[in-house]
Amino acid sequence: MLLHLSTWPEVEAYLQQSTGIILPIGSTEQHGPTGLIGTDAICAEAIAKGVGEATQALVGPTLNVGMALHHTAFPGTISLQPSTLIRVIKDYITFLAKSGFTTFFFINGHGGNIATLKAAFSETYAHLADLNLANSDRIRCRVGNWFMCPSVYKLAKELYGQSEGSHATPSEVAVTQYLYPESIKKASLNPNVAKGHPIYGAANFRHNYPDGRMGSDPSLATPDHGKKLYELAVKELSQSYLEFLNQSVF
Amino acid sequence: MLLHLSTWPEVEAYLQQSTGIILPIGSTEQHGPTGLIGTDAICAEAIAKGVGEATQALVGPTLNVGMALHHTAFPGTISLQPSTLIRVIKDYITFLAKSGFTTFFFINGHGGNIATLKAAFSETYAHLADLNLANSDRIRCRVGNWFMCPSVYKLAKELYGQSEGSHATPSEVAVTQYLYPESIKKASLNPNVAKGHPIYGAANFRHNYPDGRMGSDPSLATPDHGKKLYELAVKELSQSYLEFLNQSVF
Amino acid sequence: MLLHLSTWPEVEAYLQQSTGIILPIGSTEQHGPTGLIGTDAICAEAIAKGVGEATQALVGPTLNVGMALHHTAFPGTISLQPSTLIRVIKDYITFLAKSGFTTFFFINGHGGNIATLKAAFSETYAHLADLNLANSDRIRCRVGNWFMCPSVYKLAKELYGQSEGSHATPSEVAVTQYLYPESIKKASLNPNVAKGHPIYGAANFRHNYPDGRMGSDPSLATPDHGKKLYELAVKELSQSYLEFLNQSVF
Amino acid sequence: MLLHLSTWPEVEAYLQQSTGIILPIGSTEQHGPTGLIGTDAICAEAIAKGVGEATQALVGPTLNVGMALHHTAFPGTISLQPSTLIRVIKDYITFLAKSGFTTFFFINGHGGNIATLKAAFSETYAHLADLNLANSDRIRCRVGNWFMCPSVYKLAKELYGQSEGSHATPSEVAVTQYLYPESIKKASLNPNVAKGHPIYGAANFRHNYPDGRMGSDPSLATPDHGKKLYELAVKELSQSYLEFLNQSVF
Amino acid sequence: MLLHLSTWPEVEAYLQQSTGIILPIGSTEQHGPTGLIGTDAICAEAIAKGVGEATQALVGPTLNVGMALHHTAFPGTISLQPSTLIRVIKDYITFLAKSGFTTFFFINGHGGNIATLKAAFSETYAHLADLNLANSDRIRCRVGNWFMCPSVYKLAKELYGQSEGSHATPSEVAVTQYLYPESIKKASLNPNVAKGHPIYGAANFRHNYPDGRMGSDPSLATPDHGKKLYELAVKELSQSYLEFLNQSVF
Amino acid sequence: MLLHLSTWPEVEAYLQQSTGIILPIGSTEQHGPTGLIGTDAICAEAIAKGVGEATQALVGPTLNVGMALHHTAFPGTISLQPSTLIRVIKDYITFLAKSGFTTFFFINGHGGNIATLKAAFSETYAHLADLNLANSDRIRCRVGNWFMCPSVYKLAKELYGQSEGSHATPSEVAVTQYLYPESIKKASLNPNVAKGHPIYGAANFRHNYPDGRMGSDPSLATPDHGKKLYELAVKELSQSYLEFLNQSVF
Repeated sequence: MLLHLSTWPEVEAYLQQSTGIILPIGSTEQHGPTGLIGTDAICAEAIAKGVGEATQALVGPTLNVGMALHHTAFPGTISLQPSTLIRVIKDYITFLAKSGFTTFFFINGHGGNIATLKAAFSETYAHLADLNLANSDRIRCRVGNWFMCPSVYKLAKELYGQSEGSHATPSEVAVTQYLYPESIKKASLNPNVAKGHPIYGAANFRHNYPDGRMGSDPSLATPDHGKKLYELAVKELSQSYLEFLNQSVF
Repeated sequence: MLLHLSTWPEVEAYLQQSTGIILPIGSTEQHGPTGLIGTDAICAEAIAKGVGEATQALVGPTLNVGMALHHTAFPGTISLQPSTLIRVIKDYITFLAKSGFTTFFFINGHGGNIATLKAAFSETYAHLADLNLANSDRIRCRVGNWFMCPSVYKLAKELYGQSEGSHATPSEVAVTQYLYPESIKKASLNPNVAKGHPIYGAANFRHNYPDGRMGSDPSLATPDHGKKLYELAVKELSQSYLEFLNQSVF
Repeated sequence: MLLHLSTWPEVEAYLQQSTGIILPIGSTEQHGPTGLIGTDAICAEAIAKGVGEATQALVGPTLNVGMALHHTAFPGTISLQPSTLIRVIKDYITFLAKSGFTTFFFINGHGGNIATLKAAFSETYAHLADLNLANSDRIRCRVGNWFMCPSVYKLAKELYGQSEGSHATPSEVAVTQYLYPESIKKASLNPNVAKGHPIYGAANFRHNYPDGRMGSDPSLATPDHGKKLYELAVKELSQSYLEFLNQSVF
Repeated sequence: MLLHLSTWPEVEAYLQQSTGIILPIGSTEQHGPTGLIGTDAICAEAIAKGVGEATQALVGPTLNVGMALHHTAFPGTISLQPSTLIRVIKDYITFLAKSGFTTFFFINGHGGNIATLKAAFSETYAHLADLNLANSDRIRCRVGNWFMCPSVYKLAKELYGQSEGSHATPSEVAVTQYLYPESIKKASLNPNVAKGHPIYGAANFRHNYPDGRMGSDPSLATPDHGKKLYELAVKELSQSYLEFLNQSVF
Repeated sequence: MLLHLSTWPEVEAYLQQSTGIILPIGSTEQHGPTGLIGTDAICAEAIAKGVGEATQALVGPTLNVGMALHHTAFPGTISLQPSTLIRVIKDYITFLAKSGFTTFFFINGHGGNIATLKAAFSETYAHLADLNLANSDRIRCRVGNWFMCPSVYKLAKELYGQSEGSHATPSEVAVTQYLYPESIKKASLNPNVAKGHPIYGAANFRHNYPDGRMGSDPSLATPDHGKKLYELAVKELSQSYLEFLNQSVF
Repeated sequence: MLLHLSTWPEVEAYLQQSTGIILPIGSTEQHGPTGLIGTDAICAEAIAKGVGEATQALVGPTLNVGMALHHTAFPGTISLQPSTLIRVIKDYITFLAKSGFTTFFFINGHGGNIATLKAAFSETYAHLADLNLANSDRIRCRVGNWFMCPSVYKLAKELYGQSEGSHATPSEVAVTQYLYPESIKKASLNPNVAKGHPIYGAANFRHNYPDGRMGSDPSLATPDHGKKLYELAVKELSQSYLEFLNQSVF
């Protein structure tokens, strides 16, 4: 059930059954010479929809832009500053909590979002405690990173080994190929891909990772791999969501 | 050309041809008993894609949540505070300007976004002037509201007359019916729909507009109307975009 | 009744009769070669006082500086950033609401303030709803732009036609001439005044509008015109204020 | 020379002679049973105009609302939060510095503003150092408190002794009586006026100072006293301004 | 009793006896050629501990970095912006107030902190009044500046006369020599020390005070002086704290 | 070499040798019935000093208060909000970068700080890139968590097994016992310590972890264990710091 394809009376009815919601969050950032700039948002959105169908959960709108400051020296990247993203997350959760939602499961497609999301959750819990909401002490947030699901990670390693790398990975590229087969991009990739550099500012990142990849060989990706990875992610995150939802708060 | 389905080298190439970009912005808010909560984002995104195809322009990711504070007493509505939205817009434009973009055309699906967008543009121009970007004095932003296009407005009046109303309108519902025919919702609508109340806070809004509609009869909408309205909007905003793009800055 | 010339017990007594207040807001910005930098504040303040006398309403202190970022490449202009102005308006309304005021009528002298004022009202309603004020759901704000009153606009068109322009207009200059006859300025004005350029950043504005006027010929202004325009504005905004005050909130 | 009664070319010409500006700042706050709510703004504005005439200095628009949080339990008081006021001051100085002003003399009518003004100056110096203004290392700000001028203080003590108190003082009331003789207010004042309590929050302040006065007997004020106090303040602050202006920065 | 060396049940028990807490605040800033960069934090912390022992008061953690923007052109200086420091102080007091503390005594080692602390107190009182704390109208804050204690000031003048100066003073250096005898620094000091310049931005400060001292001769300091100054400060601030603690709030 | 015990000329000299600095960051939060509220700051500060001695690195002042919102339902806990902490970290790094420092190694004693620190680093890199510092693209930050050093973790598991838990752990308590043997606290601890609950808001945390411990048995701690753990942490973080310092940026 997608929030964007629902009416408010349908949401009101849903809230009688469940106070959980799934929120996909991605990023708009370079993914190497062949990866789509929307990769992280595309994957998070599709997997969240899959989880929503599998669990009867409501799925909110996708946060298309996340925390990608280190990628901003590549054209086409958009980022929120962490302090902006904290405010955005706080606004999302606050108004949904006023609607009656208590259980927020963010399906995340971008490692760079994790720290800021966690900071935002802490700030939001404290903010909500200062309002007089009936349910403010029942508010719970969690991040589910599809690319860190053990089953996904295992298959990626089997398929790609060291060539999985850590950004513009064949596994995330494969998922986008499965979802958008008409947008599969080709380019000759330098086999000596950069890897192992820590991440600091944007200019430094581009210097160290000149084509945007971090140790990955996305040419190994296939749509069929993508389908398998997608299905594993949906299955595992569905389970995670239901466990989270059914956990007692106190 | 969608930013999310492009690679960074494709964006780099695009920037050699054009420094314009289209950014769809909608809202996640109640649209009466039968209107989709995502109506404003759905319409803005689809029309923006249409304009992008018609004009060869790059289309960025959709801002799914806008300024909808007055709707937040209805479940399922999410809003950014205006000061949050200003920061978000400032971050978007700043990082795209660092990529080399100068001309930002926001295709907007929600009247409630307009004031904050304008405020954000002013704040962003001043912010960029303090950075040392090569093109900071060439940055231009504009809002194109699809529902205010004269051709769209004229057809809506012809089709619906007074029943167009000003929120949860049959015209916007029709566009979503055209785009998502499987999500057409039915409900018995009170013929004495509220209208004419000014908009203040959320509790007041819900009191005055108890089912969320403002003077509208969305039961008049049809997918076929939606197709016509969509096509008019795409045509007119394509022209607006090209005029804007080709206008000399100085 | 001016707040600044009242005591707190007088305000306490006033609140027994009315919870409405008028707040003049102007700007401190260039108004072409002959217009006063304080034009917008001067007009708003004088008209607000006139409305206050005509309606027995309390008139608060003038906000002398508004949102004039696009004029800041001309010396003497001062502007708040929109996000600063939002905070200022929020503070004003919040503390007056704690006093018991519910109905805020901003008499505005500057088009550039409108978007930010509207954004500020939305943010403030939501803020007040989170406090535990007795009257937070009765708070109402409105902007009354004197220069957009139909009667004023009609007379300006009659007197000046196309030469009214849209900034440093003869009508606003005329009102300041009526109010400050000793400060009437003369200069030889280029008859080929710039017009029709959209407004972006400050450097761009000054480039496009080199003497600060936007399509106007303020040399047509006379103090006598100013008196008539002032009186029309007072009459029409007095009616607007009373209608606003007497409208039922729910 | 008043900024509000000047044109931008006049300001441009002024800047050839001087880069100093006087900015009056007051407050909108209760001043006891008989003191005007605008007392601090009225005094600061009038004295600033006097200083401007005596020194040929440009006088900017009055900041009518300052930091008066501790008075907000009395109706009619408006306050900015300190962090709001810091932003306002930063915006004022930043845009005037971009015009070419370097020397900012705030004539202040309210003790409660002093701490925040000083904090704002520090924050602004650092902000301007990060911009690339030609004159950023020459920016200087100072507060001139008229009520703390030794000559003013001495006369107040001679006239009123202990009854001067520290808020709603006969000396400030006298200045307003001189300036607005038609607005002299009378009330029977409790001779056992509260005094000596430290200032904390607003509710506490009103509890400790139930009629708003702090140890003062404003019934001693006369318009004639006000004239003398006004003239002393103008004289002394004119000297202060000129000394400040002519001091070498380095 | 040091908060950092206590457990939460001990704090719970303490709150049964007293709701007062002492918070040392210093700065991390240049103190001339021989003064320690931590001077203000070192002095505040040691004196606060002494006061805590003398009065059985709880002593919180030291705020090591304060408002030292004007010193930031000297290497090793760290500063918070005033608006950052306001937030920090607001967070400290808010969470301690939620624990049950009401009476906050800041023992301060740096003149540059005073204005921002006062602004922060005002902002915090207003913030707490908007929460629903049982004790929000009993919250009281005060700054105790050890270097402005009359007994300390008197001894400093006796020992050093004009050579006390106003920054990198022999008295503060002496206290650090007493506390850290192994860190006494020597350097040849220019006898023509700069003095009398007002304080503006950081570059200006360093230009006017090239070695960082303001009119002081810290070579006069001895550990023995430091011991005496320390003891006077502890004694006098202990008395101040107890008076503050025992003063009735209403 | 401690920044607080150095003079600015010593820092200037140090910068000729190294542009690295170590910054200890802890927290002020409940650590169960027997753990010190300052545990995280005490450990971070002591270990940072040890690392500074071992590596000749400059050690800055301790950030005594971190992100501990989830502990704030226990008396004595102080927390910064994440958005406050981001500003603090940004201010620290910005001013130290203006001094010439490029390499920031935070020795951290509290898991709850990690997410916010990472967010702050990202925000700061982007901020510094907008300033015109000579070295802004060489700025690097890293967090070294002493309790996550493999050697420390291994010994803790050997000594305490499952009883190490995850908050108020015997290992951190042991380090404080080694450092402050006179502050060893005793209490009878419930053997059925709570564990395994996720962390949400403060009220929820206290409900789930009623005495503040998370699965730990701090009664197993001894000063001698603390000495060993401290030494392992110093050794391992010294190596980490030197590797970080000597890594090429590009």
